[in-house]
Amino acid sequence: MTNAHPRTVPTRRQLLTRIGILAGSGALYQAMTAMGHAQGTDFTAPPVLSGVKPGTRVLVLGAGLAGMLSAYELRKAGYHVQVLEFQNRSGGRNISLRGGDTVTELGGATQKVGFAPGNYINPGPWRIPYHHQGLLHYCREFGVALEPFIELNHNTWLHSSEAFGGRPVRYRELSADFNGFTAELLAKAIDQHRLDDAVSAEEREYLRTAMQEWGRLDAGLSYGKGALSSGMRGYDRAPGGGPDGAPTFSTPFARKDVMRSGLWTWLAFHQRMDMQTTMFQPVGGMDMIGKGFNRQVHDLITLNCKVTAIHQDDRGVRVTYNDMGHGGVVREAQADYCVCTIPLPVLSQLDVQVGAALRAAIMAVPYVSSVKMGLEFRRRFWEEDEQIYGGISFTDQQINQISYPSNGFFSRGPGVLLGGYMFGPAAYDFAGMTPAERLEHALAQGEVLHPKQYRKEFSNGVSFAWSRVPWSLGCCSMWNEQARKTHYKALCAMDNRVVLAGEHASYVGCWQEGAILSALAAITQLHKRAQGVG
Amino acid sequence: MTNAHPRTVPTRRQLLTRIGILAGSGALYQAMTAMGHAQGTDFTAPPVLSGVKPGTRVLVLGAGLAGMLSAYELRKAGYHVQVLEFQNRSGGRNISLRGGDTVTELGGATQKVGFAPGNYINPGPWRIPYHHQGLLHYCREFGVALEPFIELNHNTWLHSSEAFGGRPVRYRELSADFNGFTAELLAKAIDQHRLDDAVSAEEREYLRTAMQEWGRLDAGLSYGKGALSSGMRGYDRAPGGGPDGAPTFSTPFARKDVMRSGLWTWLAFHQRMDMQTTMFQPVGGMDMIGKGFNRQVHDLITLNCKVTAIHQDDRGVRVTYNDMGHGGVVREAQADYCVCTIPLPVLSQLDVQVGAALRAAIMAVPYVSSVKMGLEFRRRFWEEDEQIYGGISFTDQQINQISYPSNGFFSRGPGVLLGGYMFGPAAYDFAGMTPAERLEHALAQGEVLHPKQYRKEFSNGVSFAWSRVPWSLGCCSMWNEQARKTHYKALCAMDNRVVLAGEHASYVGCWQEGAILSALAAITQLHKRAQGVG
Repeated sequence: MTNAHPRTVPTRRQLLTRIGILAGSGALYQAMTAMGHAQGTDFTAPPVLSGVKPGTRVLVLGAGLAGMLSAYELRKAGYHVQVLEFQNRSGGRNISLRGGDTVTELGGATQKVGFAPGNYINPGPWRIPYHHQGLLHYCREFGVALEPFIELNHNTWLHSSEAFGGRPVRYRELSADFNGFTAELLAKAIDQHRLDDAVSAEEREYLRTAMQEWGRLDAGLSYGKGALSSGMRGYDRAPGGGPDGAPTFSTPFARKDVMRSGLWTWLAFHQRMDMQTTMFQPVGGMDMIGKGFNRQVHDLITLNCKVTAIHQDDRGVRVTYNDMGHGGVVREAQADYCVCTIPLPVLSQLDVQVGAALRAAIMAVPYVSSVKMGLEFRRRFWEEDEQIYGGISFTDQQINQISYPSNGFFSRGPGVLLGGYMFGPAAYDFAGMTPAERLEHALAQGEVLHPKQYRKEFSNGVSFAWSRVPWSLGCCSMWNEQARKTHYKALCAMDNRVVLAGEHASYVGCWQEGAILSALAAITQLHKRAQGVG
Repeated sequence: MTNAHPRTVPTRRQLLTRIGILAGSGALYQAMTAMGHAQGTDFTAPPVLSGVKPGTRVLVLGAGLAGMLSAYELRKAGYHVQVLEFQNRSGGRNISLRGGDTVTELGGATQKVGFAPGNYINPGPWRIPYHHQGLLHYCREFGVALEPFIELNHNTWLHSSEAFGGRPVRYRELSADFNGFTAELLAKAIDQHRLDDAVSAEEREYLRTAMQEWGRLDAGLSYGKGALSSGMRGYDRAPGGGPDGAPTFSTPFARKDVMRSGLWTWLAFHQRMDMQTTMFQPVGGMDMIGKGFNRQVHDLITLNCKVTAIHQDDRGVRVTYNDMGHGGVVREAQADYCVCTIPLPVLSQLDVQVGAALRAAIMAVPYVSSVKMGLEFRRRFWEEDEQIYGGISFTDQQINQISYPSNGFFSRGPGVLLGGYMFGPAAYDFAGMTPAERLEHALAQGEVLHPKQYRKEFSNGVSFAWSRVPWSLGCCSMWNEQARKTHYKALCAMDNRVVLAGEHASYVGCWQEGAILSALAAITQLHKRAQGVG
């Protein structure tokens, strides 16, 4: 079955462009998060750091998850730990926004969140795959309650402006038809002996049956209107009770429209390791994790410290910072070692005394930006009118997706959905708008998917543009293959007395799990170094 | 693209047999529940029954969901309602078993449930599809809290004794490889111009790209070991953090093994309307629904009434029953109309005065039996050791499936899983065993999927054999096409003053939604008849 294909391998950029053309900007987001990134974890248990020399001091920069976990495990091992945090809160990018919260961004725009009590949006991380065992371990250890996050929902909308007359279709409709037509083409090719050189006589039988059953083909190996297809894609009139309970079948789309739509890209999306079920979220908002971590180490953290320099020599590490809680007065902290979790776009602008390789790595890692929109509506119309309970609708418009809350199902009050989650050019476009303009664009685009209710039920909203966040200057690291090859080892290797941690120092970039695993790797290195074996 | 296929259409029986052969007895269960059954709902709102003549009396037989809902809506409309129930509890097949409960079955075997506090198993219905809007409506109206039921879990096991050396494989592995190889075969056939008569030049390009992206094919249109496939099926060593964070890729199975395994039947399974996400369960056990209904109508229900005869004439309906709460004394209840929800295997043995068509229908509807096993283990090893959070593992052994609880995720105490859910011959085999023998067989078969922990962590278990339940004598109705054609209308049509309700009087058989919709249809008929317009 090998096939010497004559075409050359497309570059990553070409591939992105091709998907982008086929399926809109949403696919860019998908492809960017899929390639060379973050689809698993190698966590088994926390490292055992034994034999610490009493009095050994570690300075941790940043009280996000990587910083707080480093502090937690290092103190447990016997180190003397101090954490400096830029913000007036711990948690880093682990944030939830609730009614009464204020968002102030670079450029000065300020938004006051107007959500009803109990509602929230997570502008940063918002879901936890089942295989992010490091994060899940600490959630359990720190008493953070988790509940299912509905990622795949067969009843959400898929929308392409170029397909099906611009009307959204249900995931189940597209999925059933895509599978059905794929199976029909292959089953008939096999049945007509067109693939006999590639498939043995024995396998032919299995394959034909597999295609027939999986694709819901009729006895003639055709996919079409009837009980088999409606049982997957849905009915025109659903089965009911009593004398008039018989269903009427729906009509599949045309094969060429299904294949041309590009919407099949979202079928594979949900099968990726990092999008598979079962997915989780903390009960009450993602920041319950940050708060859980904070409960363990809050006594070690000093807030409002704007680090300006990290110096080191044979005797130790010396960090200079402005104490923003006291008029910006310059202070200094000293330690034997330093775990630095400052995001690279910020770190690259500081006076950091490290070797050339690490310095080059800090400069080299690209960051991606993103914008998230949290929109509150007066009622959960997506549930009440459209039977959508959690999950994500995708569109080729700039907003890329609408995600419905996985909490508060069936409640009658106002609900908050994710009204846009943009990467790439769309994120920069939205970041360049005023918050009011962003809302207007999100409503205009979301209205295409929910024409009857989106304007009518809208109450208020908030946007979060990561490129305008002063303490991260972007959303997360976006390694490419070349940068990974050249700089990854250097970025993660301990540089004399300084070691970096954070999602950027992992193969699980843009996920909290990356912060967890990088922190464990960093403190393991630090401990070896302190023991004189690293 | 039409294709006059020479083979004749296989009969339902042949199809079942073929799937059974390919994929084991589990597929029988799947096929039986898939064909001619239950994949939607036509509920929009409760019927409005206005103008009831004061004093009109309705006797409802059975206090399951259909009976209680009939009573609720009829009383609301102004009818005088009385409900007679055989058991010493309401709820019918809506049951949950908890520690301390007793199960006594025909034949005399009695089991005392030994689960720890908070644990339960649902021997009857256990999940609610998003489109069962009738049931969901009343859950909301009656204050029954719902939480997600995890149906599809990419990390559960698929097992065939005949495939992969008898070792279970992960759903994600099989799914990725099945899609990949399917896409590879079709993409190459298209690329090599073998399907040019079936696919236009324009569609060729779309199709090739669709297959490449959906199936995670490389530039040569091949599916194989690498970042693309491991990103779906999982890694040998998952991506991590720090210097050694690079993943190592897993090796796909051989195509012929994937296709021969028959396990692809479970890929389509989760895409069926009645198995799609988002699925729900009541918080605390399925019987929270029965209790919610009971709260509305408990004052109308008389328990322990064993109906023996239903007679009717021009003046009314007369039901004879033994009052089992008072030594079985014979009593009579009279009303103007009767809604009868007694399961047909029981009803067919009573003295029921109805016309020939309805009598024939009552006798004609086949019922299916099933057995469910609830097994308690000392810890949730499926979560702690195998990262399985909810969802279902399937096997071709008799137990058919192991379903992991969708509640209590990450808790440390003992957990209860569904250690077997059998239909057809396996159900009769298990029903013929003693409860202790059933447990032993369930453990021996479950051990194949969880060899390290199943025996070691087992604590106690209970089995529920529906064929041995005196008040239903089976699990639920199993209409076939012929019976549906001949008898369905007669079964659902009001017979003078008597109308039937229950899942058997619907196209949503074996689901609670069938009970809901049939009850609404029945009382609508009854009301029309009482108004002289039916």
